[in-house]
Amino acid sequence: MDSHTPYSRLKARFARLSHLQDAAGVLHWDQSAMMPEGGAEARASQLATLRTLAHDMLTAPEVGEWLDAAERDEAPGLDDWDRANLRAMRREWRHEAALDADLVEAHSRACSTCEMVWRRARAEDDFAAVKGPLATVLDLTREIAVTKSEAFQCSPYDALLDAYEPDGSQVAIAAVFDDLAADLPAILDDALAAQGPAPTPPKGPFPAARQKALAERLMQAVGFDFGRGRLDESLHPFCGGVPDDVRITTRYDESDAAGAIMAVLHETGHALYEQGLPPAWRDQPVGRALGMSVHESQSLLMEMQACRSRAFLTYAAPVMAEMLNGGDDGAGWDPDTLSRLYTRVAPGLIRVDADEVTYPAHIILRFRLERALLTGDLVLDDLPGAWRDGMKEVLGVTVPDDRTGCLQDIHWYDGAIGYFPTYTLGAMTAAQLFQAAVEAVPSIPDDLAKGDFGPLLGWLRDHVHALGSSVTAAEMLERATGKPLDAGVFKAHLRRRYVDRAE
Amino acid sequence: MDSHTPYSRLKARFARLSHLQDAAGVLHWDQSAMMPEGGAEARASQLATLRTLAHDMLTAPEVGEWLDAAERDEAPGLDDWDRANLRAMRREWRHEAALDADLVEAHSRACSTCEMVWRRARAEDDFAAVKGPLATVLDLTREIAVTKSEAFQCSPYDALLDAYEPDGSQVAIAAVFDDLAADLPAILDDALAAQGPAPTPPKGPFPAARQKALAERLMQAVGFDFGRGRLDESLHPFCGGVPDDVRITTRYDESDAAGAIMAVLHETGHALYEQGLPPAWRDQPVGRALGMSVHESQSLLMEMQACRSRAFLTYAAPVMAEMLNGGDDGAGWDPDTLSRLYTRVAPGLIRVDADEVTYPAHIILRFRLERALLTGDLVLDDLPGAWRDGMKEVLGVTVPDDRTGCLQDIHWYDGAIGYFPTYTLGAMTAAQLFQAAVEAVPSIPDDLAKGDFGPLLGWLRDHVHALGSSVTAAEMLERATGKPLDAGVFKAHLRRRYVDRAE
Repeated sequence: MDSHTPYSRLKARFARLSHLQDAAGVLHWDQSAMMPEGGAEARASQLATLRTLAHDMLTAPEVGEWLDAAERDEAPGLDDWDRANLRAMRREWRHEAALDADLVEAHSRACSTCEMVWRRARAEDDFAAVKGPLATVLDLTREIAVTKSEAFQCSPYDALLDAYEPDGSQVAIAAVFDDLAADLPAILDDALAAQGPAPTPPKGPFPAARQKALAERLMQAVGFDFGRGRLDESLHPFCGGVPDDVRITTRYDESDAAGAIMAVLHETGHALYEQGLPPAWRDQPVGRALGMSVHESQSLLMEMQACRSRAFLTYAAPVMAEMLNGGDDGAGWDPDTLSRLYTRVAPGLIRVDADEVTYPAHIILRFRLERALLTGDLVLDDLPGAWRDGMKEVLGVTVPDDRTGCLQDIHWYDGAIGYFPTYTLGAMTAAQLFQAAVEAVPSIPDDLAKGDFGPLLGWLRDHVHALGSSVTAAEMLERATGKPLDAGVFKAHLRRRYVDRAE
Repeated sequence: MDSHTPYSRLKARFARLSHLQDAAGVLHWDQSAMMPEGGAEARASQLATLRTLAHDMLTAPEVGEWLDAAERDEAPGLDDWDRANLRAMRREWRHEAALDADLVEAHSRACSTCEMVWRRARAEDDFAAVKGPLATVLDLTREIAVTKSEAFQCSPYDALLDAYEPDGSQVAIAAVFDDLAADLPAILDDALAAQGPAPTPPKGPFPAARQKALAERLMQAVGFDFGRGRLDESLHPFCGGVPDDVRITTRYDESDAAGAIMAVLHETGHALYEQGLPPAWRDQPVGRALGMSVHESQSLLMEMQACRSRAFLTYAAPVMAEMLNGGDDGAGWDPDTLSRLYTRVAPGLIRVDADEVTYPAHIILRFRLERALLTGDLVLDDLPGAWRDGMKEVLGVTVPDDRTGCLQDIHWYDGAIGYFPTYTLGAMTAAQLFQAAVEAVPSIPDDLAKGDFGPLLGWLRDHVHALGSSVTAAEMLERATGKPLDAGVFKAHLRRRYVDRAE
């Protein structure tokens, strides 16, 4: 291709931008998994400088001109992927160019300050201590939302949402969440009635080294390529790095091996998506994952749909028994105990500990509250009370303090408003994709029971991973499953697994 | 200080540049210690982009103008450190401004590629596999050398050398190396005659985990701050990272604990220098270490002068016995055996395994070969043979293969030509600094025998580390020791330790 067309200039610029973002990704991973405390200040400077350079690189006047020219010309050499790439470039540019550098910097600094205060406030159950910093974050986030909404011609909330969920809309999300919410209380009641007494979990302690060896063995079975990735430890499990060098992390609790293993399989789902992105488009926007809900769908498909299934646990139980208890299958590492353990339902206070049935209620509450915070319908003084009332309403639980209430999640305190709904959108997408995969390849449950993820992964590679961002999330879902996002599939899955106890 | 003077603008620009270089430093460490093989291409792109951005940032027209203005004005607010900072900025600018961005990027990419190929080529003893990538690196390095030599008005080799050894000159180095080389054969003969039968080394195997625990304990004794650094593993031990987050690496041979421990103490010397640099000048050129020979002097002072001394081994032997053999002092962890082991002289094939007496011969050969490669007097096809001939000549040893020949060191494959002489310059500097330290603080040998590095480290902090680059290497040495670099001090040290067996 001619290297002097506007589009080819854009490709070169976005490739560089991608290298910068990738470098920042590795440094972020290092910060969580490797960095000693003394390195914090130097690392903050490194990341701030990379961020500033990326902003300058993307918002330089010529980039807007190239985008205009490339879109106007519709160069004949551009194929579908190129055109999707151009759209993804425009989206990234829009987000960056809408804001001036001072607002971005003020917001970034406010988030850093607020996050630091939040860590102590959460530990000390002291919402009042973080209210001021959170108010600043909210004000600046609102300013960003309003500024972007004018540029994008959408609502302020949708302007924030778009960064996590391209083309997402709060109206559409509210509709599908309402559909789900209407049936969740009944599903929960039925699930609680159906599940029987709590199983006795396998007895530890389970040394971290053994858990790690098991995690690596299962990651390998699932299809993680260790030639292009690593497993390490950090305080909060996450998936970072770049597609050919994916870094997932977990933490080991020596009294509860089951938890760490499932957390690893969840992150492995994210990692497989990254490793399966189209190699030919590595450093271009179209080569990246679709929004956060599709990313979450890949981790939840692996964890919830595949690995908590009775089929997979039939394969995994003896492997766990062997690697954690030297083969003692009396220890509780049998498929039945594991299945009951991994599908146990119990309304609780903490989102990250929630089961698959109650998890959406945590999200639906946050989605409602964050929209009200953004419009100003909910003021910060009333947030703790609104949280308590909300939890009583959606899950019937009594929130005893703010530590286990509105202080539990980092998101808002770090400026991430518009992110929460992607978790439950991801859960619904996962159910729908898994159902379509099994319909297309009926052997998948039997394959999982043999520890063979090849057929499932192959289907995901073809229908999700290899597409990058060449189509929208909605197009991907419709092509892969024959219909748009449908809460009914997820609800049916919940009923089969938790009420009929049949999955 | 006024933030609009040319000098203050330079400080802001060099701070950013320093953040970029620091980011690249962490990514380099990661590449050697953490990165899976599949990440190589992405990492090469990240580093090449950071390198290019640093180049653009440094060579933007305004930087040259600010430098001219700041040097011309000699602003009254500038103190000695500021003026030294300005000189260091000019040096860095000179190196960068001499080259255009394409050459810099091509070189960076070629080095990353070649280094990855070399890793496998060395393991498989396959020089032919890496010859192509190495030829590319050499061609680009030659182009860089010639271009810089025209700008700096010096020889191409000196232009490369200057990046590692500011103001270094191959003529001066050749002179001091000739001085040393003239006496080395006799010292070697006398040392071989004086050392008596080989000691029986402590019997392994020594699990890597135990070696690591011991290494960390000794690092702590020496003064390494683990709040600002890490110890990890890599193929080739090195010291990387940034002053408040220093990353040293080593490799463990389970049959030879003594080797890994001394390699760690060597890298710890490098790390202590970084950790001791002046905090007030963290992200400015004057806050950095002097050239590589001074850096190497700090590692060799720690390893060779301090830690291989009979005094230190008196302290270390029981610690080693306890941590490696559960306190069994019949295992060979006694000061006498250790001292004989750690001062054993034997001509060999591998530079990094070489003893203090034969090490300079390895360097003198590389110094000769790399100059010939640069001029083109030696072509790559002839490198393996020239290596064999050279080793026979300088040490009388027969090189059986390229793995233990010209493939053994990473340097050339990573584009580092002009680096090797700094090792032996460092050895001579170390001997001279240690002698001065002991003259100033006569208790140092007794302190080392108690495992107390405080007095030695205090002297190094005051006379070397805390100076950053506020003076030249030559000035530092002359102030600290009262005279310029003198091969005689190193030769006297070799005779005392290896011929008189008295250190």
